[in-house]
Amino acid sequence: MAVTISEVRAAYIRIHKWIHKTPVITSQTLDAMAGRELYFKTENLQKTGAFKARGACNAVFMEKEQNPQSAGVVTHSSGNHGQAVAYAAKCASLKCSVVVPKGTPKVKCDAITGYGANLVFCEPSPQSRKDTCAKIASETGQAIIHPFDNYNVMAGQGTIASEFHDQVPDLDAILVPISGGGMTSGIAVATRGLRPQCKVYAVEPLGKDLQRSLEQKCRMWPNPPQFIDTIADAIRTQQCGDLTFPILCDYIESKVFTVTDDQMIEGMRLSMERLKMVVEAASGAAVYAAVRGMSEMDPSIRKVGVILCGGNVDLDMLPWVNRSTSYQ
Amino acid sequence: MAVTISEVRAAYIRIHKWIHKTPVITSQTLDAMAGRELYFKTENLQKTGAFKARGACNAVFMEKEQNPQSAGVVTHSSGNHGQAVAYAAKCASLKCSVVVPKGTPKVKCDAITGYGANLVFCEPSPQSRKDTCAKIASETGQAIIHPFDNYNVMAGQGTIASEFHDQVPDLDAILVPISGGGMTSGIAVATRGLRPQCKVYAVEPLGKDLQRSLEQKCRMWPNPPQFIDTIADAIRTQQCGDLTFPILCDYIESKVFTVTDDQMIEGMRLSMERLKMVVEAASGAAVYAAVRGMSEMDPSIRKVGVILCGGNVDLDMLPWVNRSTSYQ
Repeated sequence: MAVTISEVRAAYIRIHKWIHKTPVITSQTLDAMAGRELYFKTENLQKTGAFKARGACNAVFMEKEQNPQSAGVVTHSSGNHGQAVAYAAKCASLKCSVVVPKGTPKVKCDAITGYGANLVFCEPSPQSRKDTCAKIASETGQAIIHPFDNYNVMAGQGTIASEFHDQVPDLDAILVPISGGGMTSGIAVATRGLRPQCKVYAVEPLGKDLQRSLEQKCRMWPNPPQFIDTIADAIRTQQCGDLTFPILCDYIESKVFTVTDDQMIEGMRLSMERLKMVVEAASGAAVYAAVRGMSEMDPSIRKVGVILCGGNVDLDMLPWVNRSTSYQ
Repeated sequence: MAVTISEVRAAYIRIHKWIHKTPVITSQTLDAMAGRELYFKTENLQKTGAFKARGACNAVFMEKEQNPQSAGVVTHSSGNHGQAVAYAAKCASLKCSVVVPKGTPKVKCDAITGYGANLVFCEPSPQSRKDTCAKIASETGQAIIHPFDNYNVMAGQGTIASEFHDQVPDLDAILVPISGGGMTSGIAVATRGLRPQCKVYAVEPLGKDLQRSLEQKCRMWPNPPQFIDTIADAIRTQQCGDLTFPILCDYIESKVFTVTDDQMIEGMRLSMERLKMVVEAASGAAVYAAVRGMSEMDPSIRKVGVILCGGNVDLDMLPWVNRSTSYQ
């Protein structure tokens, strides 16, 4: 196994001065609705507004440690990972290129260039992103920082769990919104090392169908890889990574919580009303599963951790304002 | 002086198990905009969604200590203080009546009755509220808990500052949204006792005109008392209290930061975008003053504390959705 609790511990030592130790918050109202004790880890308050800063810092700082003459780093992402790598590179005084598709909103571009990164536009297709990223890497010698299929990134995300188990030492389970699986595998590895009796559950958008692959311990997804049609743009990747999937098979529960867009929106709204936390739809998925989905979980599980993974949301486009919903 | 640091310390011992020690959060982006270091005390995450839980707990618990046969407590407020007194009475197992004007939204009524309090409707005038409250007090023997003109309430609010100075030990100044002055006087008393070199500034809605009264150390407001026309319903009271005003004259800066409704809205939005914190307009006033108003403050003041006093806001009525604004 290329990521163990040792790598997570080393990651924490490496990055802790550059990230926030995010608070854990609670709500008696949500506890009553869930019929359990819920503990929310507020990674929406993390540097750059999402947990991605942890993995990016660990991977980028390791690149600098291992290659003192490094030409820098490159990645492709218009979202939280792009900002996070730009932030990490700035912290490490490394050059950074971020490939984004044409048409990316200016506010996202500004967030990336605000950290001093070089923005490179590509065509809005997965292939063009990859090709452009590879071209920059080969021309400049910059190291590619993959958003999830990278053990150093996973180890960095695992520090969410090492902090969380320190803050709440007796969790029975943790609910993690999943996309490529970098955060979930990091949390699963750290949890196995620090509190093996604590179960890790993934929360997915409808259409990911992760449970079937976990149950069979085999990649059952259709190819070529595709995006899921969901409002949660941070978790649109259908397939988990080649490196993350085996870790998930070993360490997380095969039961997966599946959440629709309307349910995520309800989760976002519960978070804003009850926790006073601005979160993006992926976090809303975990909140919904924790508050409304507990009938699917063993009643012996009393203390449930919930990852509020990010808070980067367009306040002009809050979904209940723009949809006809009845979440009162 | 009827409130000193001793009463604040005693209040903290009395209430700390029933309130949250709220986190302090920071944002490099807001620091850069302000040109100072800003530390945000997240009382929007407090029990009942606002700092009012502190003062209410202290006053209600003291009522129970001093009158073991107490008939309970009564107050008039449809807002944060009403919820807070209901919560405190539930914690103390005391009876509670809350007087609210006819037409109060159901969601606010539900929040009060959810804590087991008895809801009493009155006419929507200040006089009717007072009269109804006094009538209940005389008929039932319940003790009136005034929202700000009560030394026990002030001492409870002062615990915001004792926590804050413990969390950030070298603040140069604190910005406090002001209405009746209970929170501001409590914070001022605690700050004078714990860190006398730290200055306390009030942030007011336009129309309060507090600075004139502070400069003259005399109540310059027109009578009868009136409400200010502002979207910040938590800070509509124009006049500070008879008990709070002398403390304010002694302990806070006579310079007052004045904020318009549009500026509060910008502050709310900055809080949600940059701090990921849902706050109400009164908190938005303090955020605006901290981020945009620092040209009015001595440049030697580097570390500024900002009180996010509450987060109870109607998510269907976020002001930038319902107004033609250009806060991007």
